[in-house]
Amino acid sequence: MTGEPMTATTTPTAQALMARRRATLGPHSPTFYDEPLHLVSGEGVWLRGADGVDYLDAYNNVPHVGHCNPVVVRAIADQAARLNIHTRYVHEGVVDYAEALLATFAPHLDRVFLTSSGSEANELALRIARQHTGSTGVLVSDFGYHGTTTSLAELTTGLTVQEPLGSHVRALRVPDLATDPRAEEVVLAEALDEARAAVASLVESGHGVSALLFDPLFSTEGLPRVPSGYVKAVVGLVRSAGGLVIADEVQSGFGRTGLRMWGHELFDITPELVTLGKPMGNGHPLGAVVTTGELLEEFGSANLYFNTFAGSPVSAAAGTAVLREMTDRELRTSALKVGDRARVLLEELAADHPCVQAVKGTGLFFGLEFTDPGGKPDAGLTRRVVEDMRRRGVLISRVGRHDNVLKIRPPLVFEHDHLTLLAERLTASLGALEAA
Amino acid sequence: MTGEPMTATTTPTAQALMARRRATLGPHSPTFYDEPLHLVSGEGVWLRGADGVDYLDAYNNVPHVGHCNPVVVRAIADQAARLNIHTRYVHEGVVDYAEALLATFAPHLDRVFLTSSGSEANELALRIARQHTGSTGVLVSDFGYHGTTTSLAELTTGLTVQEPLGSHVRALRVPDLATDPRAEEVVLAEALDEARAAVASLVESGHGVSALLFDPLFSTEGLPRVPSGYVKAVVGLVRSAGGLVIADEVQSGFGRTGLRMWGHELFDITPELVTLGKPMGNGHPLGAVVTTGELLEEFGSANLYFNTFAGSPVSAAAGTAVLREMTDRELRTSALKVGDRARVLLEELAADHPCVQAVKGTGLFFGLEFTDPGGKPDAGLTRRVVEDMRRRGVLISRVGRHDNVLKIRPPLVFEHDHLTLLAERLTASLGALEAA
Repeated sequence: MTGEPMTATTTPTAQALMARRRATLGPHSPTFYDEPLHLVSGEGVWLRGADGVDYLDAYNNVPHVGHCNPVVVRAIADQAARLNIHTRYVHEGVVDYAEALLATFAPHLDRVFLTSSGSEANELALRIARQHTGSTGVLVSDFGYHGTTTSLAELTTGLTVQEPLGSHVRALRVPDLATDPRAEEVVLAEALDEARAAVASLVESGHGVSALLFDPLFSTEGLPRVPSGYVKAVVGLVRSAGGLVIADEVQSGFGRTGLRMWGHELFDITPELVTLGKPMGNGHPLGAVVTTGELLEEFGSANLYFNTFAGSPVSAAAGTAVLREMTDRELRTSALKVGDRARVLLEELAADHPCVQAVKGTGLFFGLEFTDPGGKPDAGLTRRVVEDMRRRGVLISRVGRHDNVLKIRPPLVFEHDHLTLLAERLTASLGALEAA
Repeated sequence: MTGEPMTATTTPTAQALMARRRATLGPHSPTFYDEPLHLVSGEGVWLRGADGVDYLDAYNNVPHVGHCNPVVVRAIADQAARLNIHTRYVHEGVVDYAEALLATFAPHLDRVFLTSSGSEANELALRIARQHTGSTGVLVSDFGYHGTTTSLAELTTGLTVQEPLGSHVRALRVPDLATDPRAEEVVLAEALDEARAAVASLVESGHGVSALLFDPLFSTEGLPRVPSGYVKAVVGLVRSAGGLVIADEVQSGFGRTGLRMWGHELFDITPELVTLGKPMGNGHPLGAVVTTGELLEEFGSANLYFNTFAGSPVSAAAGTAVLREMTDRELRTSALKVGDRARVLLEELAADHPCVQAVKGTGLFFGLEFTDPGGKPDAGLTRRVVEDMRRRGVLISRVGRHDNVLKIRPPLVFEHDHLTLLAERLTASLGALEAA
């Protein structure tokens, strides 16, 4: 695949297919773009549309080691042909995988519950925290998202759900030095006042504090640059109230932040629970809760937890292949280098384009935050950039409370040449949209 | 593989592997058998142990069209090598699959939400029911099980969870004519009195009735033979109170009950929501909520529901291959014939063995219920039969409130020869255990 820019058009096939899709999955199953993109194949960082266009994938984090990675595909195919079974029987592959996965964590995080998705992982982590603490209160970040279930909908503010925020939930506004003009210590002090009040309110309400649940990158929130010490201080407040710390690494894990394996290593903290999902099996459904021996013992001895699909030999083979590819291709180092270079290129773009308020992100998860000439968040421009980039053969998206942050989060095999292509087209896109 | 009976022994490898497993997945991750069974490969209805024994699999329902079914394996391998992506882009495979799946349902059930597991499906069905009705109350069967999440733990009585039964939950004792000596009309009247009281209690408590959630086979409950008209009458009570009906077809679906595709077709009812899981992808993680256009519209327009892993081209390929194999090999017909023959053989066994209180089950899901000479449930004997059958190279398990029902629920490709082998060994096992 080449990545030559072409004008994408929705083919008659795509329209007919969308009609069939609406008649089965319904009209609300979300799709990207004004005219949804019909895909037929993928390879590495490239996705081929039914329109014949090869799109540079600068968006998808699930195909972590590349679309259709041959090592992962072979591992899945070979194991699926040999044996796929649940964990009530014993299989070597799942134990090998558990050992390899746990070796990437700090020593105290030495046990794993495998699940079928990040939603199942966050559900389980909350069950463990509630049972351990005897409390129900949960602290989350405002405009966050952690999964599709009822308990998770009750703490979701980052997308539309009908469930009201639970009376046991407090959502903290995450401070962002990238867009807040005030001094860091002022921003930090205000944010910690809010956190202190939230913890006090949970305690006073009788819910108490079972857990802080947070994505170390605050992805859905728009990749804020949080004041130094903020996360550690909130963790301290939660611990003082008896709560546990759950790092939701569904988006920030597996080297996404560059060099470090886990996003929570950005901060000087030690979570008791870490939840995993999306990139874990390169698209094969796989999630996990990594925790301590003590918490596993407490929960496991008091509850029968069995997850039919989780920990099958095929999912273990997929997970193992992802870890192996990450090591063999030094993808954590690559994410650091390409990510750092990305921020340099984005800063250059920002200098040339006053619509760019800030460069956001860490490692291989980055974006630009746009404002209008009056300094207000510019969701319209952000949307136009995303649509225009698609026409230029590059897939990105948008995120954040005001929907005004580009979401650029490619597979970890995204290299310097791909970044150069992305930057060229983003430059052209911003130039064209400014001229329009 | 041959299926010659051999004495299974736990190999040193299995012991070392169990030690490594306990050190990673922990000691509570459930396994079958006094000495867990270490498996290395599978084919059709056969599983090969690390001990070199070929075990006849008369237990596992997930490998629905057979362990390592070549059609399914090829579909997964081919699609994994071509493209695996979520549903925010458009792909033909998922639409093809949705159409094929929906074609197996009554016309009013014409929309599907795909999920990654049965737990996710039941979670979603309950969200839909609560939002539609504005009520929270749920009616379930006592000693049921519907999944691993908090909301589902709150209505679980069929296995150990620390969450107490929710104040919004009423668990109905399912009547069983196979073990209840009273006249059917007496049993039915008592059971409906209990259901009426439960509905009234939910209404009076202010929770109201959002849904009846039930497994049409009442699998975990021990495969009771419910009085004719029981399920339909309970459905009527729930409907009168404004509640919806959710058929949990994770165990009873996809032809398991013989001939009919869905377990709820056993009764003259039309559920608004049907949840699917286990056998759907032959082991590839895949679940679904099938519902009406009206309910999808109501929920979908008010909530953004996106499930990362669900509806990927690979899961659609797996699901499609399962449906194709079911049709090509006429597995629903086979399940009916082999299941009917199984009950004949089990009745013969029952006539010879006074420890057998009843023959249980429907289609290719059957078992024997054991009592001691005093007529009390005999969990000990049931456990010994399961262990002894493993030594004879046949895998089964046990189920039910008193753990005294054999759980025999093989892949749907289980044929007459396999059944003959199973019956022979079960006869030998009961003979040996009685003599002991």
